Amino acid sequence: MHLFYQPDPSIFELDEEEARHTAKVLRLSTRDLINVTDGRGLLQTCRISVAGKRVIYDVIDSTHIKPRNYRVCMAVAPTRKTERNEWMVEKMTEIGVDRIDFVVTEHTHTEGINRIVNLARLNRIAAAAMKQSQQFYLPEITLVNSFKTFVEQQHISQKFMAYVPVHDRTAHVFSKIEKGKDSLLLIGPEGDFTPAEVEMAMSHGFETVSLGNTRLRTETAAVAGCHAINLAQFV
Amino acid sequence: MHLFYQPDPSIFELDEEEARHTAKVLRLSTRDLINVTDGRGLLQTCRISVAGKRVIYDVIDSTHIKPRNYRVCMAVAPTRKTERNEWMVEKMTEIGVDRIDFVVTEHTHTEGINRIVNLARLNRIAAAAMKQSQQFYLPEITLVNSFKTFVEQQHISQKFMAYVPVHDRTAHVFSKIEKGKDSLLLIGPEGDFTPAEVEMAMSHGFETVSLGNTRLRTETAAVAGCHAINLAQFV
Repeated sequence: MHLFYQPDPSIFELDEEEARHTAKVLRLSTRDLINVTDGRGLLQTCRISVAGKRVIYDVIDSTHIKPRNYRVCMAVAPTRKTERNEWMVEKMTEIGVDRIDFVVTEHTHTEGINRIVNLARLNRIAAAAMKQSQQFYLPEITLVNSFKTFVEQQHISQKFMAYVPVHDRTAHVFSKIEKGKDSLLLIGPEGDFTPAEVEMAMSHGFETVSLGNTRLRTETAAVAGCHAINLAQFV
Repeated sequence: MHLFYQPDPSIFELDEEEARHTAKVLRLSTRDLINVTDGRGLLQTCRISVAGKRVIYDVIDSTHIKPRNYRVCMAVAPTRKTERNEWMVEKMTEIGVDRIDFVVTEHTHTEGINRIVNLARLNRIAAAAMKQSQQFYLPEITLVNSFKTFVEQQHISQKFMAYVPVHDRTAHVFSKIEKGKDSLLLIGPEGDFTPAEVEMAMSHGFETVSLGNTRLRTETAAVAGCHAINLAQFV
């Protein structure tokens, strides 16, 4: 059944864009059934009562989908290219992520940062990816302007920082994950973290890890790191 | 040191696009050192003798980088969107792949297929990703029009087919990989393989595997699958 996103469970109507998609692409009409999630675990089975330019529905069944027993948090230095930030949000959401913080580091280009990390647009991309991959939790996405403040404020049990490729398999983030525990992985910018940033993170409980033996672009490292964590929790 | 790609080791000159990049972006000039690979494991240290619109170099040292002791082959049903095919090539190359076959399946849209899977352009993207990630082997990329012919002709020791998400961790491709052996993973189109295709592949020695418990788009499945295989060989 088609899954839709309505963050406010007191509004029994799809937003304009989803309504258009429902009518024009999916050709759903009155009395058809749809699934609706609020992105916080609520899954409702609904029957369309009004179809057309507006789509209004009645809830006929409602259930709460439990979250995973671990949280995956990714903190990534934004790339200079909007589309690379967008695709890492899409791909991490499909694979499984609870929070994405775009963190400005010393080597991050901050010119036009609110356009390059457009939170409204990134949220729409994450919502589409959540629906596409049939999940019921929308990741929280933020932009953090201070690396120092960020590393000081994290109280997650497993905190990692991807740093320089190494060939030692025990240093891979995959080998570090403890099942059922929350984890946070920091991914640096092109030009990497500064030694001062690495030291600052380490003094706040971050452990440096590797993502394998090839040199990955920031967005590839983010997706590979997110995938490695999910895989370590799964297999 | 900057890495460049020149597939023909008898030509001691960069191609036009790389020459422009060398002069305009990197600002390299006569007597500067560069690395050049042929994409087949040859790594040459070279000194620029002519810089400008043309860049010509002398080889001052030459070495052969050994390939990995396993091959990663990915066979993917092309998506309808050119850019999604392009980014999976870029990302799989960064992560580590030896061959990418775009295989037309029953549910593949074949209209404009040679534009959507533009091999010349995909080779350029793979070459750029190879250089970016400091690797010395360029993956081979092909377009295969017959699923049947493809599955009949594969003689790789470990052959897998990603099919339906399952929650059983032993079914994950990661758990199936034997270290040091070549492997091939087939990724289906939107709308998945047909039951007949699954049967055909299985009768030719393919084993169905899972890529985890979320539903992934084709291009995400390709990147996640490629990453899982590399990780299984690494950790």
